[in-house]
Amino acid sequence: MTLPQPGPVRYQRLVHISSEQQEREEALVERVVSSFADTPDARTKELVESLTRHLHAFLRETRLTEAEWRRAIDFLTAVGHITDDRRQEFILLSDVLGASMQTITINNEARANATEATVFGPFFLEGSPDVGLGGDVAGGAPGEPCWVEGTVTDTEGRPIGNARIEVWEADAEGLYDVQYADERVSGRGHLHTDADGRYRFWAVTPTPYPIPDDGPVGELLRATHRSPMRASHLHLMVQAEGCRTLVTHVFPSGDPYLDCDSVFGVRESLVVDVHHQIPDTPTPDGREIAGPWARIGCDLVLAPVRG
Amino acid sequence: MTLPQPGPVRYQRLVHISSEQQEREEALVERVVSSFADTPDARTKELVESLTRHLHAFLRETRLTEAEWRRAIDFLTAVGHITDDRRQEFILLSDVLGASMQTITINNEARANATEATVFGPFFLEGSPDVGLGGDVAGGAPGEPCWVEGTVTDTEGRPIGNARIEVWEADAEGLYDVQYADERVSGRGHLHTDADGRYRFWAVTPTPYPIPDDGPVGELLRATHRSPMRASHLHLMVQAEGCRTLVTHVFPSGDPYLDCDSVFGVRESLVVDVHHQIPDTPTPDGREIAGPWARIGCDLVLAPVRG
Repeated sequence: MTLPQPGPVRYQRLVHISSEQQEREEALVERVVSSFADTPDARTKELVESLTRHLHAFLRETRLTEAEWRRAIDFLTAVGHITDDRRQEFILLSDVLGASMQTITINNEARANATEATVFGPFFLEGSPDVGLGGDVAGGAPGEPCWVEGTVTDTEGRPIGNARIEVWEADAEGLYDVQYADERVSGRGHLHTDADGRYRFWAVTPTPYPIPDDGPVGELLRATHRSPMRASHLHLMVQAEGCRTLVTHVFPSGDPYLDCDSVFGVRESLVVDVHHQIPDTPTPDGREIAGPWARIGCDLVLAPVRG
Repeated sequence: MTLPQPGPVRYQRLVHISSEQQEREEALVERVVSSFADTPDARTKELVESLTRHLHAFLRETRLTEAEWRRAIDFLTAVGHITDDRRQEFILLSDVLGASMQTITINNEARANATEATVFGPFFLEGSPDVGLGGDVAGGAPGEPCWVEGTVTDTEGRPIGNARIEVWEADAEGLYDVQYADERVSGRGHLHTDADGRYRFWAVTPTPYPIPDDGPVGELLRATHRSPMRASHLHLMVQAEGCRTLVTHVFPSGDPYLDCDSVFGVRESLVVDVHHQIPDTPTPDGREIAGPWARIGCDLVLAPVRG
């Protein structure tokens, strides 16, 4: 069994723990692990045994006090009580501890030049409108118009036609459509690449926004002097036959939160330049826009399905 | 989004993880740990950093799938939603993973011949009746009368007078008074040792009972073929000036659940013989009892407060 990774600070090393005490603690760990011996499903057994070992390693390493244990119970209880159909505080907790991003990383292994994956987030909805190639996913969302274009290829550089691209994003207020009380559908849509693997669509220029921080996860962020802000981004999900589904973000360069994204979603390879256009600059498709607009180029590379 | 289903075998032992992939995963752990660098409280910083390292070690070791991550989120959500003022499923979860008992073990270090501590449990209430030396804590609870007596001493063998002993227990139906819908007070009380450190009281003979298993923790126990039963026990809390407060159980020997107590509370040193008495055997204090009764002897040793 792999041991927990060593950390940089080990206060408990300063405390003398008798060998009798250590034996008691180790015996308890083994007793709990043994209790799962009859688990019929091998994978479930592996998960609960590993969870037990790491949980106990955490308790023993930190010498968690009973008062701290109680605070942990109260914290989890508060996370549970704020969670409902519209608010998922456990996902938020997983996000700010980097557990969501680590799970994504584990399940989307580095493959040649394939575009890196990042967090899915809680705002994707099935059934987005088909905006068509060159269409507008903004759907009336407030924000600066942003032209996004690029190619979808495989890791050999071959274009992938008819790849389905789902796009979703927050508006200039930092809100997704589902966060509004009305039934609006905006800032989401899908389209397909052409035969040459090319895609293009209108969206709004992404802007930074905070994750919901009025609950226990927000308290954790404040207690640890962390920002709730997410670096501005556009969500993309790309699906094509024979390819690993890519769930990723496009991050505009220059964003002040790229180095402290609250959910650790940023990958350097996903940061792209935004080309800001002054008013009256002609648009690629002749759309008339009164004010400024922007354009982003982003080529996407899909990994093959793991053989 | 279609996610892969978890398999029954330990794939990750067979899977080659490239050094590039390992570096990505390790870099993410360090990024999350670094995000806590500005935490003002040193202990909070230590806890969140250690939690991060152990959580990520668990994810990486098990190669947790996205579907399993989602199931974990759903499980915690269910634990949160069943938890209310009367039902604490997070404590139950901590109990069945041995985390409660490990916290108790860590915070009540082995000290000479001091009586070992065990889990506090969720059923203690402040304000129990003072039953006096030799009184009856049963308070009408159904069950076989049981005489409990012994001494309270320090680790040098000196008797401790006026030590406060809190007793609480389930009745013969396996229920604590707070689990009944009425306002009964039964199966709980307190008394003080005499000048020679002696104590004695009537209770009911402890019987085994299941922890509440109609929620997600019960599902976990069933999925892992574990019993929800607790070995029969009497709760004791002993407090005296200059001594570490002792929270422990007395476990009658011969109980069928001593080796598989669902919350890992059993310590061999806490198992005592129950002397069953046939009907009409005279009682120690002349109390008249129609049927059988039992007696337990249990000497308690308090550790000094840690200097």
